[in-house]
Amino acid sequence: MYYSSETALFGIYLIAITAEAMSGALAAGRRNMDIFGVAVIAFVTALGGGTIRDLILGRFPIGWTQHPEYVYLVISAGLLTTVIASFMHNLKRLFLVLDSMGLVAFSLIGSNVALGMGYPTIVIIMSGMITGICGGILRDVLCNQVPVVFRRELYASVSLAVCGLFLGLHALGVDTDLNTAVSFAAGLTLRLLAIWGGWRLPIFSYQHRWE
Amino acid sequence: MYYSSETALFGIYLIAITAEAMSGALAAGRRNMDIFGVAVIAFVTALGGGTIRDLILGRFPIGWTQHPEYVYLVISAGLLTTVIASFMHNLKRLFLVLDSMGLVAFSLIGSNVALGMGYPTIVIIMSGMITGICGGILRDVLCNQVPVVFRRELYASVSLAVCGLFLGLHALGVDTDLNTAVSFAAGLTLRLLAIWGGWRLPIFSYQHRWE
Amino acid sequence: MYYSSETALFGIYLIAITAEAMSGALAAGRRNMDIFGVAVIAFVTALGGGTIRDLILGRFPIGWTQHPEYVYLVISAGLLTTVIASFMHNLKRLFLVLDSMGLVAFSLIGSNVALGMGYPTIVIIMSGMITGICGGILRDVLCNQVPVVFRRELYASVSLAVCGLFLGLHALGVDTDLNTAVSFAAGLTLRLLAIWGGWRLPIFSYQHRWE
Repeated sequence: MYYSSETALFGIYLIAITAEAMSGALAAGRRNMDIFGVAVIAFVTALGGGTIRDLILGRFPIGWTQHPEYVYLVISAGLLTTVIASFMHNLKRLFLVLDSMGLVAFSLIGSNVALGMGYPTIVIIMSGMITGICGGILRDVLCNQVPVVFRRELYASVSLAVCGLFLGLHALGVDTDLNTAVSFAAGLTLRLLAIWGGWRLPIFSYQHRWE
Repeated sequence: MYYSSETALFGIYLIAITAEAMSGALAAGRRNMDIFGVAVIAFVTALGGGTIRDLILGRFPIGWTQHPEYVYLVISAGLLTTVIASFMHNLKRLFLVLDSMGLVAFSLIGSNVALGMGYPTIVIIMSGMITGICGGILRDVLCNQVPVVFRRELYASVSLAVCGLFLGLHALGVDTDLNTAVSFAAGLTLRLLAIWGGWRLPIFSYQHRWE
Repeated sequence: MYYSSETALFGIYLIAITAEAMSGALAAGRRNMDIFGVAVIAFVTALGGGTIRDLILGRFPIGWTQHPEYVYLVISAGLLTTVIASFMHNLKRLFLVLDSMGLVAFSLIGSNVALGMGYPTIVIIMSGMITGICGGILRDVLCNQVPVVFRRELYASVSLAVCGLFLGLHALGVDTDLNTAVSFAAGLTLRLLAIWGGWRLPIFSYQHRWE
């Protein structure tokens, strides 16, 4: 099983940034942006989470600056989306699965980065979550809306669960390949169940204004 | 008086990040976020200002990544707020005082950090202000509203005044403990007077559209 | 011609950050901010693009922290704008030209910085674009609107064209002074033609909601 989980995770990573770039392009389209705006939002959605993670962890040079191919990939995916958007509607389910795979893969990769830098446990978990969800938050801020990640069915919670499981198994001495595979499968299952069942976290609604 | 101002400031800092986390949680509640969103906004409001300061000053590792207890504290405070929010209404005055103490403490701490790194005067002042107000700006951007700090009664100006006074007394050779105590008291007084009197800066209103 | 392009670019840079600060102040006025908010938005619009570039490239200390005079200049320009705003309406054309010069100068400076740090081609181009347009994006996010740069007539595209031309001539071994002058003139011409002709990129409009 040598190298298998790492290679698999890398493949999933490429699929994930592509899917995220496409989701960014669609959000830009909802705001009637021009194709440059589409490219920026696609880039930010796909690679923004990893950028914020690297900044917070003080990890320079930042990932994508050493991998021009990622930049070309996500911008191409964003621009391609403007052409095939009407067709993508029929792929809604596939798209949700790809997005879920991305969330889980991003979370595992982000945790691994902070783990390798010797950060405390809570920072490792937050690193995974930042990688998993900050791209979507940046997308929503640039599109001038309250981030959906704060209101959607289990999403960030899945990221949290994946990072926690990965760290727990790591602490138990489980082999990293096996750990990655198990955490990935568990996280993806949880996310798909949450979508299927419409599971949500409790909402905190507070309308009293006194400031 | 050895260590006293530093210890006092640290105690006030803990109170301040707790109060800021609670204000973030209430803002999240106004947007009907789920409890994960509440935790994120609480975290960002309380520790976001210091994070931006550390990024701007190139100070790695970033403060809270070395202090997991701060992260647990602010997330707990945010989640606790969802339970006690209805009760907090009766504590409006206490809350405003805590928030004001936080603003002044954040400003002094932020100035001190840049001072210790040898930055120019204007950067030291801006470091204090960034620490004092950027958490609230991030909170408002994530909640999709124009930051209140740009429109509220004297708030950022208090941060500016505190940092200026602290630097002035420092230049005069005043002992740091005494300086901290005096600057803190003066800043808190100014802020409370501004709230009490509804003092505001002049508004710049420009409705002509020509872009 | 020794030093001439560098000196000229520096002069244009000072004009550019002044013009950007004024555009930020006007945007703040449209949101009825107080004069502190005006100063912050002026600062962020003028120096925010360079700040984000330096963060992304891991270039510390960040530019303006070593140049207090820039900070004083942009804040002064922002505050001055509150006084002369009604008069500026008559200067609309001058202002658009200054803004265009700023866009091109920022792009060239940003590319040069990344070039000097040995980053890959795509990162050099993105560094120029980030420097050129991120100040305006931050301004719009803080003023709670969708960034105009994603929807306006050729703007970011001009930045892209300038950076590409500069890199192309650099690769051909053209002298840096000459290269800077040619790229600047070409970029400014393109931008002014785009304003004059109302040239825009194709819009991607996607109103189907299925998330």
